Amino acid sequence: MEELVIIGIKAKIAAKSLGTASSSKKNAALQITADNLIKGTAEILSANETDIENANISGLKGAIVDRLLLTEERIVGIADALKDLVNLEDPVGEVISMKQRPNGLKIGQKRVPIGVIGMIYESRPNVTADVFGLCIKTGNVVILRGGKEAFHSNYAIVNILRKSLKEAGLPEDSVQLIQDTSRESAVGLMKMNEYLDLLIPRGGAGLIQSVVMNSTVPVIETGVGNCHIYVDEYANHRQAIDIVFNAKTHRPGVCNAAESLIIHSAVAKELLPSIAAKLQEKDVEIRGDKAVCEILSSALPATEEDWGTEYLDYIISAKVVDTLEEAMEHIEKYGTKHSEAIITENYSNAQKFLDEVDSAAVYVNASTRFTDGYEFGFGAEIGISTQKLHARGPMGLKELTTTKYIIYGSGQIRE
Amino acid sequence: MEELVIIGIKAKIAAKSLGTASSSKKNAALQITADNLIKGTAEILSANETDIENANISGLKGAIVDRLLLTEERIVGIADALKDLVNLEDPVGEVISMKQRPNGLKIGQKRVPIGVIGMIYESRPNVTADVFGLCIKTGNVVILRGGKEAFHSNYAIVNILRKSLKEAGLPEDSVQLIQDTSRESAVGLMKMNEYLDLLIPRGGAGLIQSVVMNSTVPVIETGVGNCHIYVDEYANHRQAIDIVFNAKTHRPGVCNAAESLIIHSAVAKELLPSIAAKLQEKDVEIRGDKAVCEILSSALPATEEDWGTEYLDYIISAKVVDTLEEAMEHIEKYGTKHSEAIITENYSNAQKFLDEVDSAAVYVNASTRFTDGYEFGFGAEIGISTQKLHARGPMGLKELTTTKYIIYGSGQIRE
Repeated sequence: MEELVIIGIKAKIAAKSLGTASSSKKNAALQITADNLIKGTAEILSANETDIENANISGLKGAIVDRLLLTEERIVGIADALKDLVNLEDPVGEVISMKQRPNGLKIGQKRVPIGVIGMIYESRPNVTADVFGLCIKTGNVVILRGGKEAFHSNYAIVNILRKSLKEAGLPEDSVQLIQDTSRESAVGLMKMNEYLDLLIPRGGAGLIQSVVMNSTVPVIETGVGNCHIYVDEYANHRQAIDIVFNAKTHRPGVCNAAESLIIHSAVAKELLPSIAAKLQEKDVEIRGDKAVCEILSSALPATEEDWGTEYLDYIISAKVVDTLEEAMEHIEKYGTKHSEAIITENYSNAQKFLDEVDSAAVYVNASTRFTDGYEFGFGAEIGISTQKLHARGPMGLKELTTTKYIIYGSGQIRE
Repeated sequence: MEELVIIGIKAKIAAKSLGTASSSKKNAALQITADNLIKGTAEILSANETDIENANISGLKGAIVDRLLLTEERIVGIADALKDLVNLEDPVGEVISMKQRPNGLKIGQKRVPIGVIGMIYESRPNVTADVFGLCIKTGNVVILRGGKEAFHSNYAIVNILRKSLKEAGLPEDSVQLIQDTSRESAVGLMKMNEYLDLLIPRGGAGLIQSVVMNSTVPVIETGVGNCHIYVDEYANHRQAIDIVFNAKTHRPGVCNAAESLIIHSAVAKELLPSIAAKLQEKDVEIRGDKAVCEILSSALPATEEDWGTEYLDYIISAKVVDTLEEAMEHIEKYGTKHSEAIITENYSNAQKFLDEVDSAAVYVNASTRFTDGYEFGFGAEIGISTQKLHARGPMGLKELTTTKYIIYGSGQIRE
């Protein structure tokens, strides 16, 4: 625990100078870091090898090991992402509004860094440099608590990040890695209200729930997506087929992939076989309700559990409904408020769906796969918020800032 | 606990229709409620009498009893506040931005209600109707957990609120009062993640800290204000005297009142006696550091505890510094990030103070008393946030909304 307090104190001190650093200085640091990561490739890969060996010894499985793995190419990707940040506009310092009150006070609202951000994440070492870049760009100090599987990789990367900050004339404590990877250090971080302004968990549903339930520091919940596509009675059939296929199979392992298909009974008989045939190209397993199973002999019967499951795999649940309302009730009951789409040519149904579905992103006639900071044009993304406070949906640089009111007076007192 | 779950379920159901109700309907409900509160004056005052009697029996002291007390005039004030809300613009439904992406997707960000808001507060029964009005105006369902001292008053008021909603054709469960006023019901509310989107505590520092530390539901911290006025070496003396006097004595019991005076050593000898003389008009007690006590024979010595104390009374701590930086360090160490002011005619010092002081509202040459939703021109206020997420500073109607992304496509899929 003492380690954490020292880290917290150092972070607070670093935040003072990083928070007021100029964009040029922050951009220079990102550029230097990108270069140093490339130069440090051998060092990073050697540390990563240790992690991979340990993972193999522990008997970790394919996907986890793949997430852990760094290659020369992946390091180039990490460095390029930092360079891309250089060209984005720095949101810090922007005065969003400035109004003059009747008494002459000029009241403005200005974007400022949040301060110190904690990040708890799992096995992907690329998150380490990504989060660093987003935080430095926005003047936020970051405290990283990565998974123990990636410790050696993270440690090597953070060494380079800190060295680069120093080279750029910024405090190296602007990024710190918690070396204790026990559960205690994660829980300790969740209680560091005195030092942390925000905590962002990134990883599986279990990690995120644990942070939400245990943290006294404000948290932004990210990521879990049980996304639905509702094919309306008035859908364009070609669009329905293409969008369901794209949303399910383009990248099934991510949060904005579709997990559930809802289809109106008026078109189910005609359209479901075509959708199923298309999904068959990628061997997608369909788990349907009774009506679906009657239409599709290939479908397996869905259990109650299926409706609430984020498969992250080539599996989709499917249900037939008689009304738009029934579809929306199903989404409300089982959804995670991430992304949902309606496929329809009917104006009123489209508007109703947009108005009444309570999710971070609601689509008409497009794939849910677009819920993404890059696709939304933010140029960067730290995660996708599925909660309602502060940020909802893809979080870019602006969402890593807060505001303060700046007030210019000329002696005003309150009467 | 069962009471809470039922309340939660009812709230969720009410939120569906309240959230999409038109502004006209919500405004009609506010108008009807205002009228019904006036009509129900006798009923409310009789319930309030019971609370006051119980308070006297329990030996509660003057200020608490005064906060508890309702009069015919105060009920008119409560009703007028509801009518004022009618004329404000409803933020719900506003599309803040809508951009077209290169692939033709139109991505808009729309203001929507937060959903279900919980409110934990202490002895003021006027908060009951105030919070109701702000929530109904913004389409949010509210669950109220008032203090046990005000229970009978709150119960009578909520009865009228619910009856009025019904008259207006809105779900009466849009407002519910938790009848169990034990500590358990408050703690229970703090864990209702399944039903609550936001919890706002309103009351003393103890209540707020307890909510922050125990709640798993997202919280907005409001209110504690250890506000500083820094009188710079280049201050206009007349302004310094008037602003310190106003910020301290205009209404000492509120969070934006000044609690601490910091003054530059170059002007302390000349200016402190004039400030003290002015404060003397209201019998303000000055607790100073050594330098202050040497200049002012009337000052008492400040202890370490004084620097961090929100007196909410006719007391002010005072300190002499040799530099602007020293003043800002003191504010950082002891402040609560609420409101701070610099009094100066020096351009660079003013800018430095505005840039570097990390508070919700930072002033040049004006009283901290202006940190208030009405003074800021919001027309309403639910509290003053001293945290950095979602809302910072005075919270008006906009801060009671979240956003969702609405996306209009024409068959787009992700390549």
